Parts: sequence; structure tokens; C-alpha cells
Amino acid sequence: MTIVVGYVPKPEGRAALRRAAEEARLRGERLVVVSSLRAVRDTGADADNQYEQELLTVRDALEAAGIEHEVRQLVRGQEPSEDLIAIAEEVHADVIVIGLRRRSPVGKLILGSNAQRILLDAPCPVLAVKADEDDR
Amino acid sequence: MTIVVGYVPKPEGRAALRRAAEEARLRGERLVVVSSLRAVRDTGADADNQYEQELLTVRDALEAAGIEHEVRQLVRGQEPSEDLIAIAEEVHADVIVIGLRRRSPVGKLILGSNAQRILLDAPCPVLAVKADEDDR
Repeated sequence: MTIVVGYVPKPEGRAALRRAAEEARLRGERLVVVSSLRAVRDTGADADNQYEQELLTVRDALEAAGIEHEVRQLVRGQEPSEDLIAIAEEVHADVIVIGLRRRSPVGKLILGSNAQRILLDAPCPVLAVKADEDDR
Repeated sequence: MTIVVGYVPKPEGRAALRRAAEEARLRGERLVVVSSLRAVRDTGADADNQYEQELLTVRDALEAAGIEHEVRQLVRGQEPSEDLIAIAEEVHADVIVIGLRRRSPVGKLILGSNAQRILLDAPCPVLAVKADEDDR
């Protein structure tokens, strides 16, 4: 059994990863972390570098927790939702975990177009988690 | 730990209940089945009666599976999403399970306003499952 999680180095991505790791540990399932670079490309000049750093931290944490995992980075010009769904189909995911983002600065949650597509097009159930207030 | 599931006697409600029962069994958690009568009131003359029958079947199945459960029926004129969220808060739900419905006859999935509200306003993660094709 496999859990697929959509990861971006943002509060909603971290919240999703945390929950997905908990699920993987609880069920003894494999975790596939899918990060779409496209989702962070627009965030600034040092974003790529910082992103690589954060992915290394993620790998270390999963390694330390003894969770069987795999990290996939995709930069194919596809929407993040398409990446996630394609991989979920490929690995026969049991569940996809996604984070819902808050629209700063008001902090109101929104259902972005990526989240909506994943919820509707995923080949399996989707677990939607919220970014913690203190992740902001 | 408690799992809350939104139930209606429709394909999406049955799919949600099935998955929620699996989760409850896997995790040894308690299951709270929330059914908003309002959601079925419009479906026809015999709907209420048929609905009661189906709820009995649900109770029997959960009993037989050895899942600790509670069924709550609410007819307060509230939106089903408000019922679900209020109960999830009250029982400190670990997760809410909802079913996404298909717009017949084309069978395309839609994110209705209730699903969107639950996803955004729930005090905990939300697991969204799809009605099986053969549930239709």
C-alpha cells in the first residue's frame, strides 16, 4: 500500500507531509513525496536553492522515522495536480494527502484550482489537511 | 480517537460510510455516523421511510463488524455541512469522511457547496472519497 503526498515548501505542504508521514507510520505503508517545482518557481530568486535544502531535510526526517519513502521532483511544465494524479495512478496509491492553503494575510482558507482538480480527478480517496496557524 | 462520517442513502454516502468503517476498524477508533435528513427530504414521498430502513441496515452492519459506533440524525434545518462540522467539533474528531457526488446522468464528479464548506471549515483533516461507478 502506498500513500502519495503533494509537497511544496510552504505551510500547507509541510502540514500535508506531516500528516502523510503519520499515516505511513500508522499503516506501515510506503510514502511517495511528490514535489512539483513549478509550484515554487515563482516564489523568488533563492527559492530553488532553499527548496533543495528543505527536500534534504525532508528525506532525513523520513529516514530517521524509519518510513519507507521516495521523493519525486517533477518539472515538466504540468500543473501540480496532473503530476500528483499521474503518480498516484502509477503507484496505485491508497490515498493522496494534500494541504489546503491560506490566503495571506487574512489567513482564510481557499480551495485552489489544483486542490479541486485533485479532489475530483484522483483515482483514490484524498485526505485534505489544513496548514497550522503557527506554520504561517 | 473518533471518525465522523457524513451519511446519506446515496452512492456517495455509502462510499463514505464504507471507507469510514474501514478506517475505524484499522485504527480501532469510534465511528460517529451523521445523517442530515434535510439532505434526503427532497428525494420523494417514500424517502423518509426508506431512509429509516437503510439506517437500520447501517447499524446492523457496524454492529456485526464490531465497530464502536453512534448514529446521529439531525433535522434542524441546518445545512448538512454545519451539522457535520458542529459534531466533529463536539467529539474532537480525528478525521471527517465525506463522499463526493456524481452529477447524473453523465457521472461527472462535482464539488458541491456542502463538500467545499466541509473541506474548508472542518476542525480536522477531511477524507474525500468518490462513489464507485457501480454504486450509481
